[in-house]
Parts: sequence; C-alpha cells; structure tokens
Amino acid sequence: MSATRYTYLGPEGTFTEAALRTLPEAATRELAPMVSVPAALDAVRSGEAAAALVPIENSVEGGVTATLDELASGEPLMIYREVLLPITFALLVRPGTELSAVKTVTGHPVAQPQVRNWLRAHLPDAVWESAASNADGARLVRDGRYDAAFAGEFAAARYGLEPLVTEIHDAQNAETRFVLVGRPARPAAPTGADKTSVVIWQRDDHPGALLELLQEFAVRGVNLMLLQSRPTGAGIGNYCFAIDAEGHISDRRVGEALTGLKRICPEVRFLGSYPRAGVTPGEVSAPRPGTSDGDFTAASDWLARCQDGRV
Amino acid sequence: MSATRYTYLGPEGTFTEAALRTLPEAATRELAPMVSVPAALDAVRSGEAAAALVPIENSVEGGVTATLDELASGEPLMIYREVLLPITFALLVRPGTELSAVKTVTGHPVAQPQVRNWLRAHLPDAVWESAASNADGARLVRDGRYDAAFAGEFAAARYGLEPLVTEIHDAQNAETRFVLVGRPARPAAPTGADKTSVVIWQRDDHPGALLELLQEFAVRGVNLMLLQSRPTGAGIGNYCFAIDAEGHISDRRVGEALTGLKRICPEVRFLGSYPRAGVTPGEVSAPRPGTSDGDFTAASDWLARCQDGRV
Amino acid sequence: MSATRYTYLGPEGTFTEAALRTLPEAATRELAPMVSVPAALDAVRSGEAAAALVPIENSVEGGVTATLDELASGEPLMIYREVLLPITFALLVRPGTELSAVKTVTGHPVAQPQVRNWLRAHLPDAVWESAASNADGARLVRDGRYDAAFAGEFAAARYGLEPLVTEIHDAQNAETRFVLVGRPARPAAPTGADKTSVVIWQRDDHPGALLELLQEFAVRGVNLMLLQSRPTGAGIGNYCFAIDAEGHISDRRVGEALTGLKRICPEVRFLGSYPRAGVTPGEVSAPRPGTSDGDFTAASDWLARCQDGRV
Amino acid sequence: MSATRYTYLGPEGTFTEAALRTLPEAATRELAPMVSVPAALDAVRSGEAAAALVPIENSVEGGVTATLDELASGEPLMIYREVLLPITFALLVRPGTELSAVKTVTGHPVAQPQVRNWLRAHLPDAVWESAASNADGARLVRDGRYDAAFAGEFAAARYGLEPLVTEIHDAQNAETRFVLVGRPARPAAPTGADKTSVVIWQRDDHPGALLELLQEFAVRGVNLMLLQSRPTGAGIGNYCFAIDAEGHISDRRVGEALTGLKRICPEVRFLGSYPRAGVTPGEVSAPRPGTSDGDFTAASDWLARCQDGRV
Repeated sequence: MSATRYTYLGPEGTFTEAALRTLPEAATRELAPMVSVPAALDAVRSGEAAAALVPIENSVEGGVTATLDELASGEPLMIYREVLLPITFALLVRPGTELSAVKTVTGHPVAQPQVRNWLRAHLPDAVWESAASNADGARLVRDGRYDAAFAGEFAAARYGLEPLVTEIHDAQNAETRFVLVGRPARPAAPTGADKTSVVIWQRDDHPGALLELLQEFAVRGVNLMLLQSRPTGAGIGNYCFAIDAEGHISDRRVGEALTGLKRICPEVRFLGSYPRAGVTPGEVSAPRPGTSDGDFTAASDWLARCQDGRV
Repeated sequence: MSATRYTYLGPEGTFTEAALRTLPEAATRELAPMVSVPAALDAVRSGEAAAALVPIENSVEGGVTATLDELASGEPLMIYREVLLPITFALLVRPGTELSAVKTVTGHPVAQPQVRNWLRAHLPDAVWESAASNADGARLVRDGRYDAAFAGEFAAARYGLEPLVTEIHDAQNAETRFVLVGRPARPAAPTGADKTSVVIWQRDDHPGALLELLQEFAVRGVNLMLLQSRPTGAGIGNYCFAIDAEGHISDRRVGEALTGLKRICPEVRFLGSYPRAGVTPGEVSAPRPGTSDGDFTAASDWLARCQDGRV
Repeated sequence: MSATRYTYLGPEGTFTEAALRTLPEAATRELAPMVSVPAALDAVRSGEAAAALVPIENSVEGGVTATLDELASGEPLMIYREVLLPITFALLVRPGTELSAVKTVTGHPVAQPQVRNWLRAHLPDAVWESAASNADGARLVRDGRYDAAFAGEFAAARYGLEPLVTEIHDAQNAETRFVLVGRPARPAAPTGADKTSVVIWQRDDHPGALLELLQEFAVRGVNLMLLQSRPTGAGIGNYCFAIDAEGHISDRRVGEALTGLKRICPEVRFLGSYPRAGVTPGEVSAPRPGTSDGDFTAASDWLARCQDGRV
Repeated sequence: MSATRYTYLGPEGTFTEAALRTLPEAATRELAPMVSVPAALDAVRSGEAAAALVPIENSVEGGVTATLDELASGEPLMIYREVLLPITFALLVRPGTELSAVKTVTGHPVAQPQVRNWLRAHLPDAVWESAASNADGARLVRDGRYDAAFAGEFAAARYGLEPLVTEIHDAQNAETRFVLVGRPARPAAPTGADKTSVVIWQRDDHPGALLELLQEFAVRGVNLMLLQSRPTGAGIGNYCFAIDAEGHISDRRVGEALTGLKRICPEVRFLGSYPRAGVTPGEVSAPRPGTSDGDFTAASDWLARCQDGRV
C-alpha cells in the first residue's frame, strides 16, 4: 500500500493528468497512469494507491458512465475533491507536417463531437479513426499510423509532436469535471461552498417515484446540481440516480434530506461531501429561510421544549 | 388553586357536561360550569381549575371558533384528552304539555340547523328563539318563557321538564368533539392511536404558501385529520391554521414535521399530543413505509456512519 | 318574482344593510331585510328576489358558517359581487343616558369579541347579553330592555338612539366581507382583478388528500386567497373546503385548475367569478411566467402542431 | 429521395441490424448500414432515407448519448417505433480456432462491460482491444488482426467465422432499446400501450427546478418511464432532459402535461408518440382515477357549463 501514489486515467498526456496536476498535493505524489477508470479505482480499493483522479462529467458528452457505474457499485469509495478543467484541443502532428498533408486524424471518441465542426471546415476530407485515448492518439501519430491527433496541447512535448493548430473546440465553455476518489473516511470539514454526492435506488420500479425523492431535497431547501440516471442492470426501465446536491453532509438540511432518502429508498450510497470547484463560499447563495443550521437547532430546541411541556 | 376542580362550558345540563362525565376521573373532581369557553379556560390559566372541558368541533356546525381562538392566543394551554359525543336532541316541555300546544321553541343557535327539518315536519308554525345554551333554553321553558326547548335528554330531570320527543337529529352521525385542556405539561406517553394539535401562522400573507406547510407533513408521511383556517385579526386574507395530525409528538415523523413547520412559520403553537377518541391502536393503519420510529433511527445511524466515513 | 328586490340579512340598521348601500344599484332596488341568511338566500332561490347580500367572512370571527353552508348545499346559487366593509362599533343609548349609567349592554354575539377589551376598560361591571343582531340590540335598548347596544353608528337614527361612543373596535383592520348572491348565470366578464369561489369535496375521507387538491391550483400558478374547511355532515373527520382563488373562470389557468379539481373530486360546486373588492387591476400582480392566457394559447397551438407532426 | 430505404447504425451484422430485421416492413425495404448514428439520421433529414433505426438505450450501459443528442438538436426528427432486443454475445473465431488459442479479443467498447466477468473466468490472460463496432470486430478477426470477437451470433456467417461460445452476457436481462426515426409527421393513432418522448430544457440553470417539471406530469397522472439528463453544451451544470412518458400525445392527460411543460420551459422538443415494445394494451395499468379521456371531457363540459352559468 502506498499513501503517496495517486492513480489517474492514463495514459500520460491526457486531460486527466492535466487536471490532476492542478492539485497542489500532486507535486508530492507518485502519479500513476492506469489503462481505465476501473483500473484506477481498483488500485485505490486494493490499497495500492491512496487516491485516483478520474473524469466524471463532460459538458459536451455528459456523464462518464464508467466512473458513475464504478462509484455506484463494488467496494465503496468516496469523493474528496473535484477539479473543473476547460477542454480545448490542439491538432498534434509530427514536426514539419502541413495541414494540407493531413489525411487521417485520430483522438478519443469523446473528442470527436467537440472538433467535428472544425474538421468539417478545415479538413473536410480527412478520415477519423478513434483511439483509446487522446494521448494514445498522439502516440499513434508519433508512430506514423495517423497524420494528426486531437489532444491537449500539453501532450505534444511528451510524444515528440508539435501543435499545428490550438484552441480547437466546437462548443464554447467545454469543460470536464474530474473527481479525486479515495477509500471511505470522514469527509473534510465544510468550507461554505460544498457539494454532496449520492447514488439512490428507487423503491418502485417506475421512475414516477422520482418526484418523491426530489421532494426530500426540496422540502429541506437543498438545491440539486446534477441528476443523472443510470441503468441498474436489471433491464430497461430500472434506474438508479447519481445526484449532486448543494451543501455538506454536516449541514443539517442536507443530513435530514439524506435520512429522508435513506428511509424511502432501498439503497442510498453516500459518495462524499467536498468543496465545490470554481466557486468561493462568498459566491454561494444563502440557504433558503428556515434551512440554516441555526434554524434547525432552534427548531429542535423548540421541539424538546414542547415534548417537556414548556411551550 | 384547585387540582381537583374541572371547569366546563355550562350551564349544567349541556352536552359538554355529558361529555365530561364520560371521563372516569370526572367522578372524583369538582365539576364547575362556566358561562363561556373563555371563562372555562381562564380558570385553568389562573390556576383556579386543573382542567377545562370545552367543545372544539361539531360535525354539523364545524369548528367552535371561541375554543379555537382561545387556544391559539393568550397564555398557552394544552389538550390532554378528547371526547366524541353523539348529538341527539330531546324536545323538553313542562310536564303535561302536548305537542300541539307548542307555539314557541328555544335552544342554542347551534342546535337549530340540527333540528330544522324536524321542526318543519312536526312544528311548522312554532316560533324559534335562540337561547344562550341548550340548558339555558330548558331553564327558560321551566320559567314559562317558551313552550319547549331542544336539549340533551339528560337535561330534563335537572330542570323539572319531561322529554316529549327524543332522538331528534336531522343529520345522521351528528357528534361533537370536546377537548380537556390544562396548563402546559409533558404530554402523556403515546398509546399507538394518538393525535397532535398545532396552530400555525404563515410566513407569507397569501394562502398559496399553505401548500408548503402541508408538504412538511406529507414528506414525512404524517396524515392530517383536520385543517381549520382562522383569521389572525390582521384583516381579511390573513389566516392561521388549526391542524390535527395523526400521531404523537414523540413519533419521530411527527417531531420532524413539527420542526419543519417551526423553521418556516413565524409562529407554531403546540397544543398537545393525546389519545384519539373512538379509535383503538389496533384500528390505526401502519405508518407509511419508511416513516416508523425504527426507520428514523436506522436512517440516523446510517447518517452518523456516513459522517464518520464508515459507509 | 321581482327583478328589483334585493334581500339582505336584516333587520334594518345592520352592517349588512350598510354594505348593501355601498352598491350603486342598491339605490334603485327594493331592499328587503330578512331574518336569517337562509331566508335571504331562499328568497333568491324562489325568485322572490333578484339577489341577496349576506356576510360571508369576518376578519375577527372568521367564516360565516350559515352563508358558507347555504352556498355549499341546496339549489345552486352564484356570487356576483363582494363588498368589504370596515367594522367599527358605536355604543348606542337612549338620548341622555350617561356612560356611568350603563349597567347592561347587548349586541350580536359576533360583536362581543370585537368590543371585549373596550368593555373591560370602560364598562368593567356592565353585564353583556347577546341579541339576535346588532340592530336587534338597538331595538331592545329603545324598548328599555338594555341600557346600551353595540351597533353601527348608522343604526342610531333608525332606532331613536344616540351614539355615546363611536369608533369602538378592539382589532385594528376589522372588516367584514359580504357577497351579493343570485341565481346561476353567466359570470360577468373579467376585470383583471377577479376572484373565483368554489366548494370542493374530497375523494378520500382523510384530509391528507388536501395536498393534491392544492397542487391542482399551484401547478397552474393560481394563488389561493381563502381556504375554509366545513363539515360535510357525515361525521367528525369529513370536510369540504370553500376556496377563493385569484383570477376569473375565463382565465385559462383558472379554468384548467378547476377542471383538474373536477376530475379528482367527487363534487365541485362553482360559486362564481367576480371582481375583487378593494383592489384595482393595476394592483394585481402579474401571473406567474407561463400562466397567462397568451402562454396557454401558445402552448395549445404548439400541441396541435405536434399532433400534426409540424414540429 | 428514397421512400424505401431504411438506414441503420452499421456495419452489417450489428445488433442494430438484427433489431431492424424484427420489423415486418424491413423485408420490403432497402437496408443501408451507416458508419455512425449521426450519419444514419442525417440520411433521413436529407431525404435519402425514409427512416433510420438507431440504438437509444442499453440496459447495461445506459443512454446512447449520440442518439439522444442528435434527436435533441438539429433539424427535428420523430420516433415512430421502438424495438427491444435482448443482448447476448457469441465469441466468434476463425473456423478451427480453439479457446486456448485466443490471446487477443475485440468488440465494441459497450460490449466489454457485458462480457468482462466471462473474460475473467474463461480467458483471464486475453488482451482486449476495442473495435468501432461488434461487427467491425468480427471483420478484424476474419482479417487475422485479432483471435476472437464478441458479437451477435448472427454475425458469424456474414464474416465467415464460427461461434465458439454463445449466450455470453454478464448481466441478466441485458437488452437494448432501438428507435425507428423519421421526418416529422402525424404520429400513428394510439394503440392503448404507447409512449411519448420529449426533450425539455429548464428555465432556470439549477436542476432544482426539475421538481416543477416533474409535477406537470404528476398532477395529470402521467407516469414517467425514463428521465435522462444531457448537457446542453453551455457548461457543467446546464442540462436538458430526455423524458419518456407513458401514454400518447392524443391522450388528454399527456397533452395537458405537455402544454404545461411548454409553458414553463424555454424549449420543449416533441420526439413522438409510438407503441411501447414488449407490452400489450392489456398489460398497461388503467390511468389514475380522474385522468382518462372521458374524465377530461366531462370536466371540460362542466367548465363550459359553469362559464355559461348552468351549474
């Protein structure tokens, strides 16, 4: 077991590595690229790594299902950090290649829809073939199998390539959210700008019951930030939901909403409370009136007095 | 101060006295009729009486506003018992009076709509004048002011009258609910068939917000048994709500619903948790799945484990 | 049948008559006082009167149950106007009577709680006895049975009394709402500041289902202005609800909410759409986004296009 | 333009082709495999094909994002049919290959998690490399690039391979849902077991508003069968929702729910009403009381009578 090793979705040169390097502690860790999200997370489960950084959501492609499904099943893990990384591509070529000479291009399948318009405009005749990762695409270009690869500009040096074009992205604001995952432990203290992730399974097999689940949050004034349905594997029509809620498990409104879910769902998996990326506590709107910790404490005190007849 | 005196809405011979006498402890108490609901309750507030029995709801006439308003304002009081009494009237006359000789009838204004059809059918020409109470009507008949009075049959002997007709009631199932009210103290332990009464004031001045209040109950699976709006005195359009909910304040689902209300309402007045009349614990339907005390405890334990990272 | 006769809750000199006289058309109608709300309304039902003005709600005492129950049952009637009248009392005495000579006072039972504080402060020893109406109390003072009566100042002249004290009212903003009731007909066109009244019965016999009823309004953005529960007569725990909603039945959001209620309630009684008293169209807040008639029309048009495949 | 050409997600030999061939009309159509979901759908948009069959949801992998996103954007299309196909894999090899000789395997990335356990148990040392499709994997095995491919058993003959092992599937009940997509037209008449698909965008940028959207369905008694969030492309935290609801757009409850959504959402895209696969009308539960077409018609009639004063 290594407390100093962090795994990540490899290979080297991917956006995941770039995201990982935005964390200050990354400088003092051994960073180990893994071939897949499951491999990165299994290393954490087995104790070979202290944590793993994996993508969980992309603003163009949506949820990263491998990550969502790995977190929802198997030995429990918890999220401790999130990283938001703007996604912009460079077209990497072997030094000296000109744009007109690019006949074949590669990249991760997720990259394709993000550069499709650019391709239509600038390389309408180039043939796209998918690679296992953006970095892998770069490697294949270095090895001569393709003429160019879409990848992060930071990957160029690693593979001896040069960025022919940079800042390629069809969608404005394209970004990917990554999470730092570890074995379960007490969540860090709330910062005032926190997020809580859970996966919940429905009691009934019809999604109509989803309304009830959302009301457990709404009645306590907890805002939802993400709701992502995932199949449970029991056939079409059976779903669980990955939910990100505003606030920290130690916030009374969040805690009560979670117990409400726990009571009506056959299973609730707590995935952690952690600081929100890209938001400072000052930017978080105040809780709805009546839902602050002080409001909860005052109401509990009042209830105790009522139970004692001191009304 | 007298721990042995119970006041009630008098005078003697009213349905309220009859209701009071259904309570076993009434046999060992000094029962003191009072001229009004406020007088009966003020005697409790001042310590002159240990408790007061007053009507709170009639199945024909609705809520007894004097009682609702007295409980909602002034020095706090609490409900400890409820009594349901079927309401059926007798036509009381001076001995020897025949039906054909009845030209004037009296009774409490509340009695009138409950005997109106009977009057139309049997005494279409009799003139009705209201009395301050049914018992007072009997007294006025005794004194010769009216020919007949509608009252409980039990009032006949007290006023030297005889019941000419009995079992008069236009509405089937007419009944009145009475409550035994005392100074605030710890509620009796739950029996398994309990009721909790509160008065709540709305945060906003538009009744649309009522939906939010009801959701505090619904999301915790607490059924409502009564919702009665009352003016707050601040002008048309300003209301508070007297609410009876199924369950006991010591039931976790009820306690959490009450704290939810407390947090979003400017004022919540707890009026007590007490056994339901006319229902045995075996007749109470089981709480909605996920809302038993065991479910609450299990969920709280789970939350504590999550907060500790033991997921 | 008389198209020119308006009945009202008499006798002459009551606040109801004062309210009726605020209506411009009252000047050209025969105004007929009736002994009770049912009598006033039955005259309309039978065709003896074109309309009746009756009190429906008092800001101190709450709903006028006789009116609510009469409108909820029997031959249907509809509300065409409402009148809001500030309620302030005068202490009427026979000319020459001084305050110190007032030993007995009378008035309508509803008046008592509105002058109780004043009595405590200024006539602590006076004995109160209730009269059938405020005007009736004035008559009894004229006849020498009581020393003083609480009534509207306007009643003094009619009974040869003089107002010894005026502007008596314990509660600030005390006012009574009256409604002008006629036989069913097409409601007046919307004014932009309208109100719709209905009585609804619940499908289930537990008031928990009330939440569903309120959601029919909420989901269409219709605000509620009044919700008053009334017993159905089928025993304690069985209620119907008198509801006032903002808007006119010809507003699409109101119409759709009403059909929603109609579909899930065993009975819905439409009591009319009529101008709100005391509010001009300019003071009414705009409908919630997405709930204007234009929004409804646009959505219906869109639905028709979808059904035709023109998306 | 060809009214007889159906495109599908190719190449030949995929599960999509197998699904397409379950449709009776496929026998009389020219079936054209396309390299991608966008290509298959663009052929419909351009008029080169009458319809396209594409996968939309997999019970193991979840929503097919390419399909969801293509339907949610660009020139409108509509769904006319759905096909449910059980997914079970065969391990295809060149004739004569024995299991012990399989060192490299391939298949579509989506296939991998569905055969992972089987691989661990039976070919723990085999190296997996993804192919562009299951059928493409079979082609690569034929060409000698890999030793074995996971694909549908039906693909064996097409590529001159033989199924070494069949009925491989880690998950029980694995199935994929396909939809037949055409240019917008009037939906087929309801069958009694129908489904309606829409994509909705939220007014606010916080998913808390999702509760409001779901209430538009719930209040009209419309059950949801699928809710899938997709990024709008405007950055993390901005989602639209693909929703499948029970019923047909011509069902009044569905139509009213859709107009409710249309009124509060900045955009609603109707994707069609079509027969549910795998369910006969007799298996569909009756609509919630009060939500049948008859209930809607009766309520509309009642509303019209109220508007006319015929109550």
